Formats: sequence, structure tokens, C-alpha cells
Amino acid sequence: MNASAFDAPAAGREILARAEALARHSDSSGHYTRTWLTPAHRAAAAQIAGWMREAGMSVRTDGAGSVIGRYEGASPGARALATGSHFDSVRNGGRYDGVLGILVPLACVAALNARGERLPHAIEVIAFADEEGARFQTSFLASRAYLGRFDPALLERRDADGVRFDEAMRAAGLDPAAIAATPRDPGTLAAYVEVHIEQGPVLLEAGAPLGVVTAIAGGTRHRVTVDGVAGHAGTVPMASRRDALAAAAEMVLAVEARARTGGGLVGTVGLLEVRDGTGNVIPGHVEFTVDLRSGDDAVREAAERDVFARCEAIAAKRGVTVAVRRNHAVRATPCSPRLQALLAGSFEAVGAPVRRLASGAGHDAMVLAEATEVGMLFVRCGAGGVSHHPAESVTAEDAGLAAAALRTFLERFS
Amino acid sequence: MNASAFDAPAAGREILARAEALARHSDSSGHYTRTWLTPAHRAAAAQIAGWMREAGMSVRTDGAGSVIGRYEGASPGARALATGSHFDSVRNGGRYDGVLGILVPLACVAALNARGERLPHAIEVIAFADEEGARFQTSFLASRAYLGRFDPALLERRDADGVRFDEAMRAAGLDPAAIAATPRDPGTLAAYVEVHIEQGPVLLEAGAPLGVVTAIAGGTRHRVTVDGVAGHAGTVPMASRRDALAAAAEMVLAVEARARTGGGLVGTVGLLEVRDGTGNVIPGHVEFTVDLRSGDDAVREAAERDVFARCEAIAAKRGVTVAVRRNHAVRATPCSPRLQALLAGSFEAVGAPVRRLASGAGHDAMVLAEATEVGMLFVRCGAGGVSHHPAESVTAEDAGLAAAALRTFLERFS
Repeated sequence: MNASAFDAPAAGREILARAEALARHSDSSGHYTRTWLTPAHRAAAAQIAGWMREAGMSVRTDGAGSVIGRYEGASPGARALATGSHFDSVRNGGRYDGVLGILVPLACVAALNARGERLPHAIEVIAFADEEGARFQTSFLASRAYLGRFDPALLERRDADGVRFDEAMRAAGLDPAAIAATPRDPGTLAAYVEVHIEQGPVLLEAGAPLGVVTAIAGGTRHRVTVDGVAGHAGTVPMASRRDALAAAAEMVLAVEARARTGGGLVGTVGLLEVRDGTGNVIPGHVEFTVDLRSGDDAVREAAERDVFARCEAIAAKRGVTVAVRRNHAVRATPCSPRLQALLAGSFEAVGAPVRRLASGAGHDAMVLAEATEVGMLFVRCGAGGVSHHPAESVTAEDAGLAAAALRTFLERFS
Repeated sequence: MNASAFDAPAAGREILARAEALARHSDSSGHYTRTWLTPAHRAAAAQIAGWMREAGMSVRTDGAGSVIGRYEGASPGARALATGSHFDSVRNGGRYDGVLGILVPLACVAALNARGERLPHAIEVIAFADEEGARFQTSFLASRAYLGRFDPALLERRDADGVRFDEAMRAAGLDPAAIAATPRDPGTLAAYVEVHIEQGPVLLEAGAPLGVVTAIAGGTRHRVTVDGVAGHAGTVPMASRRDALAAAAEMVLAVEARARTGGGLVGTVGLLEVRDGTGNVIPGHVEFTVDLRSGDDAVREAAERDVFARCEAIAAKRGVTVAVRRNHAVRATPCSPRLQALLAGSFEAVGAPVRRLASGAGHDAMVLAEATEVGMLFVRCGAGGVSHHPAESVTAEDAGLAAAALRTFLERFS
């Protein structure tokens, strides 16, 4: 296989055309939304399976409805390099999120198949049926099921229309008893590599079409409650106030200031509520969220300590009280240094600069990391880095370059 | 009449006992709420009328249901010094708010009557039927009607149960056609003085039982909208964010900082909302209120200019936009210097220190100021200055001292 023989521009155009075609399989006629096991979702699965067969792959559907195409290696039964991503979407989402990680590897396999080439290892392209979890409020449903880590308690969950999880499975021709019964043997996996749109502006701002992901960020979410003393907006002098909102405002700025100190740290107060808030009453009770993430757990943990110590100091100074409750914590998933180096070498081989970055969003690779070493290749996100939104965009040039780099990576992997 | 002959402690105890008795006339059995023209409200009106008659006053009810007691002066038909306040309440309110301004003058008139004394001027004690406006979302309904400034558009308004304003009047035995037809001739009023619980902590913190009000603060309310760019809490680096909430937090602190610069200024952000706020999304749109008040309009207007210029600067620095809409503006009502001096002299006569302060809340005196000169006497508010709340409190000593001071004022007024 010869990298120069790969027509990257043509591959890029086809990837975008296929993303466009898949987006037509939507739960809504007004916008692109594709949730687990709806008719649109099954039609997309059938379309993906068809493309896999065209590319010379054997295709199976697993218990969660994921579509798995296998392109055998030179010797049948060889360990597989797995690659893929999800084909469900958030509501009113972007058409490249997830889908790009299925279409880019498909282009590589199609090129191998067209020339009748076999690599020493097998290649499995996995189209995960559900990662966003918009229908049943799940997380990484399909990649967990792929590894045999499905939580049976989900079977009784209901969607917004009252349809039960197991009923939805039967309606789509899937057997609820089989979803937990088909685990993948980790010994048959050589590694997992995921191609994904960046979903942020880092590559765009750096002028880099591709990125090597160093880690998938760990994160914590906290709920912070500030109690002051409510009072009449006209009659309580400034010096006598214990204003819960003014205290919270100072804390919001403390989160931002600490997150700006670097280490790939990001900190967000996404929600803030004034209880019984009205224009002429001094706020007595405020709640807000704090989301902190970093690819480096030690950096994030130090920031957490600093932020909440600062909140305590602000509360003490203002005569209010603050309470912090941790709701959620996930440790960072480091990407394999070996796979990072291989990806970087592949970028160089196709003339792309090597930009490394952490992923701030979660991906199926986090789950696969429980079974094998993982790597991720990010593709530049247009439109200011907007994702989970109809304006999400990728250029054909970048998609073609990603396919060329992944093809080189596959060749060098063994 | 001789100040030393007035039994202030006994008057104070009776005022508190009467406030207690009136609070039993409540729309709710669980807490004290008395809204316009409910059965509890009419029972309270009848009780007040009874006390007025006992104190030797002639009593009439005006078109809005206010109860007006007149104690004639030495020569019949003399101009009246009017004094009073309201006997409606907010929901789950405090029992002294408004009521104190009816009961304190009643104690003074009762003492005059007991000794058969007549002053050169008449005294009218006005129990305004509605100031808070909790039932029909009105403002100063009764004092406006008292001056013939009722807005007939209100007749079609409905309360929370769907009862129309005019139906509520008829059910209480009032004629909707008469509410606008009984204006008070301002030429018959010599002045208006209102006794009121402070509703704030200024006198409490100063250790002063009584206060001379210098002005009723003017105020403005604004709604501020901040538009940034929503984004993924994990994938957008800090330097690339246009976080509407972080910008708004800085603006909240700018309001507070400017209001702390003095001039009797207070500034409050009582409400702040993050549109579509959720923990893992950078806020793109935030709205909040700004309430600014001062007894000195020039001070408030300068603060407004500074605050919104600062908001513009914060927005420009952060790459977000800010829009400010003024919803409400009331100019300050100065209290008559002559009445302030007479009140101060009366305080000295009864041994109370003279503490001057502006009123941050609105009062019926604001409306009466359109017809005559006005003054206000504040009584210290216990429980940290809490008002519009069941914990609102006044001591019998302070109530008695207020009655003694008002009695001296009445004597010296002519």
C-alpha cells in the first residue's frame, strides 16, 4: 500500500456526501436528531451496513444495535484494530459528531479493498448505536454493551413518550436478553482508535486540520449553595447586607480566574438560580453548578481545592454560608503514548502539522480504554468550533486528510 | 395638654395589643395576610372604625374602603392635619407594617379626647384600605383614590381567583362608580404625617428608637440582557470563551461596588436567570435586574450612569453584548423641612435622640405629597430589621415613645 496512491480529496468529498446522506435519516423532518432504535436510526444502521459490505467487510449487529464491520487481515482470525464512533445524535445536533469516526475508517478500508490489500491485523469498524443517550438518558450505552458491561437496570427505563427500553428494543427487532450476553473478548482487540470532530475551536485557532489527542479529560461537577439573608432592596443599607447573589457572583469569577491559570483546565458555571428571585428583594439563597475538567487529574484536583477554598473565604468575608456537594466525578483517560506517536508520524507523512490537545468532551474511547489501549484523532471543527448544533462543520479537505492519515496509521500499526 | 401627663408606656402596650388583635383578621388561618376587601379586611376596617369612635372621632368610609376618622379642632371646619397609613398587608406579612401608623395617632387622639382637649386644627386619622396591592397588583390604590386620582382602568382587573375588581367592590358594599368621585380637596389639608415601622436595620444598628425621615427614596428598575456565545463546557478553552454568566457576575459586583460609595444609595440585583442553563454548557444568554435607589435623585442618576457605563466596558472587554431596558422610575419625595424640624423637636422633648434617614421603601406619603407637605416618623424595627415577614417586630417602649413624640408634634404643629 502506497500513501501517494490514496486519493485523499476524493475520499474527503465522499465522506462529506455520506454524512449528508446519513443526516437525512432523522427522527424529525425539521432538524437532524437521531436517537436510539427509532426508524431513522435503524435506516441509518442499514445504510452503514451496506457501505461496510461494499467495502468488503463482513457485517454483524450486536445486542445494542451497533453495526460492526470486519475486514480480515492477512491471516484469518488475527487480532483486530478496532476503530469507530457513534451514529446517534443529540437533539438538533451536528451531522459530523460521531458519524465522521465511522465514515473516515470506511474510506480507508474501501481503498484497501479496492486494491485487494490485506494488513497483518484485522480492522473492525464499529458504528456504535448510542453514545449521546438522548432517548433514555444513558451514557455510552453501546460501547458499554459492546464490552459486556450493560446495566440491566436500564431495561425498565422509559423514554419521553413512555416507551420502555425493552419494548423499544423488541420493536427494533433486538432481543433484550441478548444485550448483556454478547461481550467482546478483549484479547481479540489489538487497540482502539477513534476519529472525531474536535467539537471545540483549538485546531481552528491553531490553523491545524488534525490533532493528536493526549487524554480525554476527567471532570467533576459540583452543586454549590449560598445562603445569605433576604431583605428589602430599598431599606437595607449596603453595609448591612448578606447578599447571596453578590457572593455567588464573586465565586463565579473565582472559578473562571482559577481555570484560566492553565494546565488545560476549563471551569464552567453553567447554571445559576436565585431562589424566589424578584427585582426588589436582596437574594437570600442562590445555587449554582461548577464543572471543572482537565486531561491531568492532578491539575484538576488542585484547582478544585483552590476554587472551593476561595468560595469559603468569600463566604466568610461576606457573612454568608456556602455548601458544596460533588455530584459527578470521572478520572481522565490517557491516550496510549505508542498510539499518539504513531498518529503523529502519520500526520507528518501526509504533510499535516502535529498539534496535540486533550479532549474536553467524553467519547466511546473512554469505555474502550477499560479493555485495550486507545488513541484519538481529532478533525478540525469549523464555524468557530461549534458542535452539537446544526452549524457544526468539517471541510472535505480536512476529512480527506484525516482519511489519508488514518490509512497511514493502519499501515504502520502492525 | 401636657406631655408629662401622657402615659407613654401604657399607650405602647395598647398599641401592641391592638396590632395583635387586628392581625387576627387575616385571609388565612395559617399566617397574617389581609388583602383589599376580603371579609378579614372589612372586619379590620370595622374594628378600626370602632376604635376611632371610642376616641371621639366622627368616622366615614371613602370610595376605596378607607376608614377616615376626624377629631375636630377648636373651631369646626378647620384645616386638618392628616396622619395615617394602610391596613392591608403583603402575603404572610408583618403585623406592624402600616397598622402602626393608624394605631399610634389613635392613641394620641384618645388621650386628647379623654381630657376634652381641642387643638387649633382638626386631626384626621386615615386608615388606607390598600397600599401593598397584593390582591389586584395595584400600587397606592387607596391614597390615590383619597386624592381623586383613581385609575378607572383598574375596574376590569381580576384577582388570582378571577374575581373582577368592580365585583369585589360590590361584594364589599362599595359602589364602583363612587371610587373616583370623592376626591379630597387639598385646600382642606394642613399637612400629612405618617408613622411607619422602618422596615430596615438603620435605627436598630444606631440604637435609636425613632427616626425623622428626610425623603422617600426615588428608584429605578432596569432589566439587563447579556448575550455571549454558548459552548461545550469541556471543549472550549478559557481564552476562547464569551461566557454571558461570567460577564454578568462582573456586572453584579459592579452594581454592588458603585452602590457602596455612599449618598444613601442602595443597589440590588434581585433576579438573575441563565437561559437554558445546564451544568455542562457555557452560558450564552443571561438576564438580570438592577434596582437602584436613593433619597437624592442626582446621586441615583449619577450611579445609574456609572453602573451601565461599567457594564458596557465589561461587555466590550469580554466580547459579549449588553442591553439595558428601564422598566420603572420614580423620583424621590423630599419630606418638608418644616415638618422634619417639628418632628426632631418632638423627639428631643420626649428624650429620644434625633436620627435622620431616608426611606428606601415607598409609602402613602409619596402620594399625599402631590397634595400637601409631608413628613414621616419611623419606629425602630426589631429582629435585625426584617419586615414583610412574620418575624417583623416593634417594642411597646418604642411604640409608646412614638405616640408621645407624635402627641408633642400635634400640639406644636399649629
